[in-house]
Amino acid sequence: MNVTIAIDCMGGDHGPSVTLPAASEFLRADPTVKIVLVGLADIFSKAVLAEFAPFGDRVRIQHASEVIAMDEAPATAMRVKKDSSMRVAIDLVKSGEAQAAISAGNTGALMAISRFVLKTLPGIDRPAIVQVMPAVEGQTYMLDLGANVDCTAEHLLQFGIMGAMLVEALEHQERPEVGLLNIGEEETKGNEIVKEAGELLRKSGLNFIGNVEGNDIYKGSCHVIVCDGFVGNVALKASEGLGMMFVSFLKEELNRNWFTRLCALPAAHMLMRFKRRADHRRYNGAVLLGLRGVVVKSHGSADAFAFGQALIRCTEAARNQLIERIERRMVEYTQTHAPRTEEQNSTQAVRTA
Amino acid sequence: MNVTIAIDCMGGDHGPSVTLPAASEFLRADPTVKIVLVGLADIFSKAVLAEFAPFGDRVRIQHASEVIAMDEAPATAMRVKKDSSMRVAIDLVKSGEAQAAISAGNTGALMAISRFVLKTLPGIDRPAIVQVMPAVEGQTYMLDLGANVDCTAEHLLQFGIMGAMLVEALEHQERPEVGLLNIGEEETKGNEIVKEAGELLRKSGLNFIGNVEGNDIYKGSCHVIVCDGFVGNVALKASEGLGMMFVSFLKEELNRNWFTRLCALPAAHMLMRFKRRADHRRYNGAVLLGLRGVVVKSHGSADAFAFGQALIRCTEAARNQLIERIERRMVEYTQTHAPRTEEQNSTQAVRTA
Repeated sequence: MNVTIAIDCMGGDHGPSVTLPAASEFLRADPTVKIVLVGLADIFSKAVLAEFAPFGDRVRIQHASEVIAMDEAPATAMRVKKDSSMRVAIDLVKSGEAQAAISAGNTGALMAISRFVLKTLPGIDRPAIVQVMPAVEGQTYMLDLGANVDCTAEHLLQFGIMGAMLVEALEHQERPEVGLLNIGEEETKGNEIVKEAGELLRKSGLNFIGNVEGNDIYKGSCHVIVCDGFVGNVALKASEGLGMMFVSFLKEELNRNWFTRLCALPAAHMLMRFKRRADHRRYNGAVLLGLRGVVVKSHGSADAFAFGQALIRCTEAARNQLIERIERRMVEYTQTHAPRTEEQNSTQAVRTA
Repeated sequence: MNVTIAIDCMGGDHGPSVTLPAASEFLRADPTVKIVLVGLADIFSKAVLAEFAPFGDRVRIQHASEVIAMDEAPATAMRVKKDSSMRVAIDLVKSGEAQAAISAGNTGALMAISRFVLKTLPGIDRPAIVQVMPAVEGQTYMLDLGANVDCTAEHLLQFGIMGAMLVEALEHQERPEVGLLNIGEEETKGNEIVKEAGELLRKSGLNFIGNVEGNDIYKGSCHVIVCDGFVGNVALKASEGLGMMFVSFLKEELNRNWFTRLCALPAAHMLMRFKRRADHRRYNGAVLLGLRGVVVKSHGSADAFAFGQALIRCTEAARNQLIERIERRMVEYTQTHAPRTEEQNSTQAVRTA
């Protein structure tokens, strides 16, 4: 399937100096893909136009007149900047010209604009942010990573369904295993919301393996791990912090003196392999799941290699019909499970709000 | 100050084969400390008695007739096994013969028994589990790590006070910096409970630095990080999992073939230094804070070195009057801050239960 990706060229800490080289490399690597480069007119210099000229009609340039800052309030960004590069990229998904949009910009603004422009899929209350994490065996998709600080059991169930469909689309894995993040494996563990989510997941028809714990993220115990956005965000950032501490310790020990530097030389190749394997840039590209369109968020600090990884993920999700999979699965789920009554919902709201 | 430590010799995955060698090494290293070894009669063989004989009256042996299994339900363990090694060790703190107790056994049972026997300090609603984490600069004390899955803002405030007093006692750090774990630095971030906890902490008289994020744990951005037990437990275990993944990757790369093993040889010393620095065993020994007595939990899988680290931490906490510090600080806090009314508490309970 031919796929067109709308790229917000302005987003991220480095903007066009990262997104443009990544885009041209991406066009070279995947000859079936088309892109729309969205950005301020002045970033498309003669040199840039010359760089993209060889790709002919596989590239289209779309001007935007505004840029959303990394620290701008999402609500303001959404209401005021209607011609921002981010907004224009998402509008292209809405209009059907692009099958997916990608941005390394302000996460909150990207979520707010995507939700406003594209809307959520039927049966999905709230979109979630999902990212792939490395594991000793395989890898783990974890959600939500920060979009929803308070979740009901129903939300966690929806995250499970969406996560499983993403793994089907990206990994071609049938009936992916779904685990619920908790503080112990027993069904009696955790708070009321998590316990109720466990019950819903058990009855959901998903391949639910029960509770998993924080260390299971990196063991690869299951394909999908479901949690609320507060817990997921803390776990993700704690891992980033620990990774950086390891790197910092390793560098300090390597550079302690000329002797250690000399000793480390023969091991340089081995250390490079290790670095490549644990390299967080390979896992760049969080998907905003639950929308009527594919939207991918690259890390703000991504370099061209990392942004390229996110572009690949974005393309694969669109190419393998992520949205249609989630839609189909939600229809199946709601047909076999009676929707919650108003009364049940309001009882839960009192307990969990 | 002379300190006596009651050691539950039966606890942990390895029981006396770890606790007894650690205890004798500990007596050798710290000539001012006394210990009571608590365990089943049959672990005190002639060889063991001979090993401890040189320490004279610095060691006393106390028999217990029962052992609490690692997977036993805490409530049952507490109600039924009144002569367990864990219970007897905590009873010794209650009676005043020991100033602190340590166990590598069942965490839930240790918390339940400690709470039942020792009771919480005035003004403390719930005890919390705190552990020190390595950081690029210094180290971070984080709590709660799993004792409390649902917390009110008041609980988080109490964790802040207890954590700060622990850092004063163990690190001799005046007015330790306290941070609140959240998903962004802005005061508007997080759920209602966390926002309210931020307000309470700002008015608490503690050296509160505001919100911190998951990566701050390993940056060493502040001395104490406060969070609820669900989030703390997930962050701790995710870190354990990531650490194990790094070690596994590094080992695989080192042992890929004879050439990599040869290349790594000159770097072995450097890698050992790195390993020592990131060694989680050095950070063993979680404190159960908020009780009328010092109780320390060693990791169940601890070896003699790790158990020894927990013994040192346990002794330092008792020697530096941890309990008196928390008690004093809670009195100061409640004198300057009006206690919450019943009505406020019940309103909050509806919102957060």
